[in-house]
Amino acid sequence: MDFPGAHILSIEQFQREDIERVFRTADRMEPYAQRTRLTRVLEGAILGNMFFEASTRTRISFGAAFNLLGGEVRESVGMDSSSLVKGESLEDTARVLSGFSDVICMRHPEAGSVARFASASRVPVINGGDGSNEHPSQALLDLYTIEKELQGRGRTVDGLRIAMVGDLKFGRTVHSLCKLLSLFSNIRVVLVSPGELAMPGALVETMRDAGHWVTVTDNLEASIGEVDIVYSTRIQEERFDDRAQADLYRGRFRLNQAIYTRHCDPNTVIMHPLPRDSRLEANELDPDLDSNPNLAIFRQTDNGLLVRMALFALILDVAHLVDKYEQDIRWRNPRQKPVASTGQPDDVR
Amino acid sequence: MDFPGAHILSIEQFQREDIERVFRTADRMEPYAQRTRLTRVLEGAILGNMFFEASTRTRISFGAAFNLLGGEVRESVGMDSSSLVKGESLEDTARVLSGFSDVICMRHPEAGSVARFASASRVPVINGGDGSNEHPSQALLDLYTIEKELQGRGRTVDGLRIAMVGDLKFGRTVHSLCKLLSLFSNIRVVLVSPGELAMPGALVETMRDAGHWVTVTDNLEASIGEVDIVYSTRIQEERFDDRAQADLYRGRFRLNQAIYTRHCDPNTVIMHPLPRDSRLEANELDPDLDSNPNLAIFRQTDNGLLVRMALFALILDVAHLVDKYEQDIRWRNPRQKPVASTGQPDDVR
Amino acid sequence: MDFPGAHILSIEQFQREDIERVFRTADRMEPYAQRTRLTRVLEGAILGNMFFEASTRTRISFGAAFNLLGGEVRESVGMDSSSLVKGESLEDTARVLSGFSDVICMRHPEAGSVARFASASRVPVINGGDGSNEHPSQALLDLYTIEKELQGRGRTVDGLRIAMVGDLKFGRTVHSLCKLLSLFSNIRVVLVSPGELAMPGALVETMRDAGHWVTVTDNLEASIGEVDIVYSTRIQEERFDDRAQADLYRGRFRLNQAIYTRHCDPNTVIMHPLPRDSRLEANELDPDLDSNPNLAIFRQTDNGLLVRMALFALILDVAHLVDKYEQDIRWRNPRQKPVASTGQPDDVR
Repeated sequence: MDFPGAHILSIEQFQREDIERVFRTADRMEPYAQRTRLTRVLEGAILGNMFFEASTRTRISFGAAFNLLGGEVRESVGMDSSSLVKGESLEDTARVLSGFSDVICMRHPEAGSVARFASASRVPVINGGDGSNEHPSQALLDLYTIEKELQGRGRTVDGLRIAMVGDLKFGRTVHSLCKLLSLFSNIRVVLVSPGELAMPGALVETMRDAGHWVTVTDNLEASIGEVDIVYSTRIQEERFDDRAQADLYRGRFRLNQAIYTRHCDPNTVIMHPLPRDSRLEANELDPDLDSNPNLAIFRQTDNGLLVRMALFALILDVAHLVDKYEQDIRWRNPRQKPVASTGQPDDVR
Repeated sequence: MDFPGAHILSIEQFQREDIERVFRTADRMEPYAQRTRLTRVLEGAILGNMFFEASTRTRISFGAAFNLLGGEVRESVGMDSSSLVKGESLEDTARVLSGFSDVICMRHPEAGSVARFASASRVPVINGGDGSNEHPSQALLDLYTIEKELQGRGRTVDGLRIAMVGDLKFGRTVHSLCKLLSLFSNIRVVLVSPGELAMPGALVETMRDAGHWVTVTDNLEASIGEVDIVYSTRIQEERFDDRAQADLYRGRFRLNQAIYTRHCDPNTVIMHPLPRDSRLEANELDPDLDSNPNLAIFRQTDNGLLVRMALFALILDVAHLVDKYEQDIRWRNPRQKPVASTGQPDDVR
Repeated sequence: MDFPGAHILSIEQFQREDIERVFRTADRMEPYAQRTRLTRVLEGAILGNMFFEASTRTRISFGAAFNLLGGEVRESVGMDSSSLVKGESLEDTARVLSGFSDVICMRHPEAGSVARFASASRVPVINGGDGSNEHPSQALLDLYTIEKELQGRGRTVDGLRIAMVGDLKFGRTVHSLCKLLSLFSNIRVVLVSPGELAMPGALVETMRDAGHWVTVTDNLEASIGEVDIVYSTRIQEERFDDRAQADLYRGRFRLNQAIYTRHCDPNTVIMHPLPRDSRLEANELDPDLDSNPNLAIFRQTDNGLLVRMALFALILDVAHLVDKYEQDIRWRNPRQKPVASTGQPDDVR
């Protein structure tokens, strides 16, 4: 992929070398995200952060990533009811808004809408999620987290053993992750779900075509014993026609510390695309895992910042310039506080 | 008008030399809007972008204009129900909010509200639209676009020939444009609307008093033959007491490429205040005009950025300093990408 | 209190020397708030301004305070319905969002929620109001205003004479102010309210335990004669189970210029936490007081900016560095405009 000026609409745009390029760029963003260094490389650039569907965490993550590179953020949340009611096409909206910024991140409830918007935009567009369709930066941050977590364990994505657990039918993130994994080799995937919420057959085929071993099961405890990663997901109740149906499945595949200790290899990494459903009847990842150092779920969101910084840097062609425009950090880095003195018992880092 | 420190509430504040001053300042903003140069002249200044009525495009345009001059933006969208319910007066809101910023842009659904707010504000206020009343920056960007489009055609606003088409009764933008045009000389205006949606008589008189030729008609095709500009507008259905009434008029004056080719002089400029209504039953400017280089509607919104930058620069008295505080642009200018390589077939520039 | 890295959750954290430290730091912020000097000490730092309950003035005040120190602001307004519906815990929200910013300001309708959030946050959290519980920066700005107003009158907080008027039962601000005043000595407090809206007994006891003289009454005119400050409050109708009850009390303790002239000592300071209820039936502070130079209510909100800048500077440990990172101001300071030329007859400064 030729990053400078490109739209980032789908993970299907990414070849293995493109992923490698994003991840090595993300690595170089760590000191800025950690506030040990400060760059102003995007000074004066403007991100149009257009969230036609609310998603606080994703919106703030993109905005903060752009700020950390020195740029400004103009934002919108929710449908522009005014323009919609007045009959404006998405393409016209794109033509107007792209005149105001240097890059646009867009989220929209309708599948395909971001690609339509991008086709009329005069600046690069990043898909921040278009309904059930794509959310490429989430998929990339998941894979980036897998790679980083495995690093310290002497393993790589090639040869990965992973269990995906929960709602594999409606979970957009596991679908995208399967597609990305099919670019790698020699992977063992255990798909754990109720039969009714199974991974779509086409995706299973994609992985098998890539030479991976895929097992389908509804037995959690038998499936998490010899894997590097347990990737848990929430029952996507909002995608069920009948929400009462969702109640049948919620809480069915719970992981807690006792189950982890009994069934998992030591140092098995626990991931989740978040939000995790912490209501008692769901609780797919029990809070008693919060002190487990292998719970990587908040490292995932931290890594999201790095991946998004990398995407901006590559699209605007400044990845090689970030350290040229460094400045001194002037304030106390709150992340360097010793945990004991901060009254932050839940700090999981 | 004495710009430094002034409120911008109404186009009636503007004499011809004031307009000239805004437009020549807007010209000088072009390199910054185009990202060929970068200025930080408003470093540290804060815009209070107070949109008590939602309007994504206008809000983002003002905010981006301020960012492009180096300033910061604090924002609010929607009625502050909390303060309203608690009985706070608009003047008190102004007294408080004006303590937080250096200039305020305000939109509000109620006519006259922005002037009331400004009367109690301790910083300059720009009217970003107060109901059916005023939206001066829109009127200025329309006139600025007319001037720029005519320039390449060897014509000027003096001597302009323009057709205004559609809902001339409720369309705030055409009303304001008529007022501005009355400051110029020797203009021919054809007003094309259903009789029931005709331009208010007082505005017709204002233009005739200014020595202009005004024709009133409901025949589109006979009216667009010898004009420099066709200024099309949307049926403002939200202003009709009975929305079913609006359906009677919607779609009545459609312009498309076939009609344009048959009836218009070559290079007749097409304008519209946007959003254009692209629903099939309306479609006042057909999408088949999108590849017509004379369709100036997205140059209008681009010009809006320049005009708003100019207003900020004049009010805060930095118009003469913008190039003193220039910095290098560090990122790849997305607007310089060759169109062919961007996958942006709808790019109309 | 050890400010660097601390959460600011409650005024009960503050000892007298801490208050002194905040106020002397706030004093040093005045030139930046007044735009006679410009500092960029927090260049590159990000405030997460998380308002899960809307409050335009408080949100903009925190955001502007951070901008005035050179930092960036990422923001959210309203409940994140998406995460709530999906069952995310407040602690998880904190773990995620604190990865994106250097400090968080949070408002939330539920008492105790901000402390819960802070317990899981990896960066310092400032309580911007948690329901009926705490809003420490409001209490500090009230006390700071009292101190500043008294300064020119040769008086101090020790020895203060103050009347608190209105809804003393539900008014969070007067509760907090009483707690702060109990750190000082020799204060005379007159509590003026309907019997049903009296100050909670525990707070009266707290003040008496501190050695203060407390009088409880429902007679306004007899109570404002020999005080330094009249602190008026709104009937908090939103806290009444039966809103019709609120109507019984609204408008009962009105202060206007005639009553002020007849009963108050000259130069008695008038304060109010805002918004004041300016509806005819309420009108606890009549608009005819707006030209009274002792009306300090908008100096209160201006002081809020200084106090919030001070809190950020202390928490991020840059209070001693603000003047090291100064830059020239480049734009015309709108606050230096002579009032006569601005059409701002209501300017009360």
